[in-house]
Amino acid sequence: MRILAVGAGGVGSAAALIAARRDFFDLFVIADYDLGRAETAAAKTSDDRFVAAKIDASSAEAVAALCREHEITHVFNAVDPRFVMPVFDGAAAAGAHYLDMAMSLSKPHPVSPYEETGVKLGDEQFAVAGQWEAADRLALVGIGVEPGLSDIFAKYAAEHLFSRIDEIGVRDGANLVVEGYDFAPSFSVWTTIEECLNPPVIYERDRGWYTTEPFAEPEVFDFPGGIGPVECVHVEHEEVLLIPRWVEARKVTFKYGLGTEFIDVLKTLRKLGLDKTDPVRVKGVDVSPRDVVAAVLPDPATLGDRMTGKTCAGTWVTGTGKDGNPREVYLYHLVDNEWSMREYGAQAVVWQTAVNPIVALELLATGTWTGSGVLGPEAFDPVPFLDKLVEYGSPWELQER
Amino acid sequence: MRILAVGAGGVGSAAALIAARRDFFDLFVIADYDLGRAETAAAKTSDDRFVAAKIDASSAEAVAALCREHEITHVFNAVDPRFVMPVFDGAAAAGAHYLDMAMSLSKPHPVSPYEETGVKLGDEQFAVAGQWEAADRLALVGIGVEPGLSDIFAKYAAEHLFSRIDEIGVRDGANLVVEGYDFAPSFSVWTTIEECLNPPVIYERDRGWYTTEPFAEPEVFDFPGGIGPVECVHVEHEEVLLIPRWVEARKVTFKYGLGTEFIDVLKTLRKLGLDKTDPVRVKGVDVSPRDVVAAVLPDPATLGDRMTGKTCAGTWVTGTGKDGNPREVYLYHLVDNEWSMREYGAQAVVWQTAVNPIVALELLATGTWTGSGVLGPEAFDPVPFLDKLVEYGSPWELQER
Repeated sequence: MRILAVGAGGVGSAAALIAARRDFFDLFVIADYDLGRAETAAAKTSDDRFVAAKIDASSAEAVAALCREHEITHVFNAVDPRFVMPVFDGAAAAGAHYLDMAMSLSKPHPVSPYEETGVKLGDEQFAVAGQWEAADRLALVGIGVEPGLSDIFAKYAAEHLFSRIDEIGVRDGANLVVEGYDFAPSFSVWTTIEECLNPPVIYERDRGWYTTEPFAEPEVFDFPGGIGPVECVHVEHEEVLLIPRWVEARKVTFKYGLGTEFIDVLKTLRKLGLDKTDPVRVKGVDVSPRDVVAAVLPDPATLGDRMTGKTCAGTWVTGTGKDGNPREVYLYHLVDNEWSMREYGAQAVVWQTAVNPIVALELLATGTWTGSGVLGPEAFDPVPFLDKLVEYGSPWELQER
Repeated sequence: MRILAVGAGGVGSAAALIAARRDFFDLFVIADYDLGRAETAAAKTSDDRFVAAKIDASSAEAVAALCREHEITHVFNAVDPRFVMPVFDGAAAAGAHYLDMAMSLSKPHPVSPYEETGVKLGDEQFAVAGQWEAADRLALVGIGVEPGLSDIFAKYAAEHLFSRIDEIGVRDGANLVVEGYDFAPSFSVWTTIEECLNPPVIYERDRGWYTTEPFAEPEVFDFPGGIGPVECVHVEHEEVLLIPRWVEARKVTFKYGLGTEFIDVLKTLRKLGLDKTDPVRVKGVDVSPRDVVAAVLPDPATLGDRMTGKTCAGTWVTGTGKDGNPREVYLYHLVDNEWSMREYGAQAVVWQTAVNPIVALELLATGTWTGSGVLGPEAFDPVPFLDKLVEYGSPWELQER
């Protein structure tokens, strides 16, 4: 297996460090538009299977050319979701398999944005699924932690725990605190604004996919591992689009445990128009308000050593168990920042995202997972993945509720 | 009387329209760094006593030169408080009298900003009071609505309503709503951030002036005129510095009826660092985050015709009445935006500020008010001012509480 990782940011760099401990691949090219950043990420592995390269992720041609240059078999997309389509198309053009952790972007419904879906997350990718299948190539989409591990939990629940599923609710929460800052998001604020202010999508079997207002239906979810109760709200996320394609459930939701403070901040940014990406004129210069918000806040990738606490990703499932009785479980994965910083020098949220595509690549390399077309993680057997996660030193857990 | 108004913004322009109906002056030069704006303001009066001029308010020399050119007797400062000192010094250099509606800016205490005062509002002006007195010239500072009319109410209460005053609390609230916007401040957001995030100042006879945390001691004040209850918090304001110099009271406070929503917005801006004025680097350009906030919001001076509701400025006084019984009153002035737009084409908040310096200029022109040195509005007889306000068609009211 010869891998091209596009993006040497937090997740790309952590993925390289995780992969460096495994022997399932021959080459791991780590590419970024900032070559220095790619070189740093490659050097940190102290492993000569890692090679740095410069890339323009907005160009499918550039992605394809780099694939051909290094005889890449698998492209692993670790850049901003704005670049999903050129990286996806570039991999296809070069005849490589493809993995990502976020799908092509959505566009709100032009008339009823908070009731009906417009262009959904991943629609552009699923539209060409036939071509990937015909070429016998696999695009494994949404294989980070959420989407990714959360979808694998959903599939596991359907196959091994339930005879009938009522609701699958992905629930994400953390108690991470950054010392020395009044307010410091633990994940890209640009992306958080994007996903939290888009119309959230919900799936119901009898209704299909539909949307609602941002921050709708707040609920307090009690997270395990000492995190405790956190206010969660509907957020647009890939799981809601992926899970119903392969797993039978009456309802699928995603709620993000932003907490009351973060929700208030996002609502205020939206109210003032500071979430906007179109430039405004300010004393003779043009700037995007959202870029200004990102610029005044600290870079989350650099905050790992000032952070304490845990992050929890998981899938809550209700329905009827294999024994015919009502059952409610939460399948989850906890990462303690103190552990991920000590073991990998990577912040918890970033590490938790990065481990999953590496596990998936290993399952593909060994032939445990096979497939072609555009497939989500729930299209595969969840058991070898979950076992491999334990082998990687990062076990998952099941809580009966 | 020959007046130079420095600043043809909302308040300067409204003041010109109010003055145009009076005959107490011979010349009214309206000056702005944007000559077109000054010309528009002068032209709107259709009165040839009004002359437009260009000025750089940051230059005391430029202010003095314009005074000499037009043989100005009274400089009326209607620009941003950042320019108080050059306009004040320029008037002094030209031997003119001076009026303003905000005093020289404060600087927080370097060690205990939320406990002790540093440089207080107006300190730079009061420091040279002796020179103004020696020159037999008057600097009448803080003669807008708040400070201004609020201080006159305090003096009136002390002279005519109370034998002993416990607390004088200036309280400002409104129910103005701007149609078509989720959030649209009715006053300069730059200035609102400045005054609301500075450490608020409080006066107590036994303790002197001291400061507290922004948004401290929230209270719900029930405003008259149909406005009703609004959440008010301590804000740094000139009245607290001016009133105790001339009026005996155990305590003097200023609380601004920002309302819960505006308070939350300001707290969020502070938490994220978006209140900062120092430039940050954003994708190759430098911008001040506070300027970006102002740029994404609509300009309040242009919103008068989309606004409905009333604004209320007033002074709440508690203590012992002239009859020896406990007394509690609220002396107030209401402006209905619908009225000020119809009568003057000026938004309510802007009109309410602008009327007071014109009344004061008239009292100075007729010799009803006389004085020299640096004096606040409470240094003068309040009765002729309050009578004149009624004559201007904008009566004040007294509410027993």
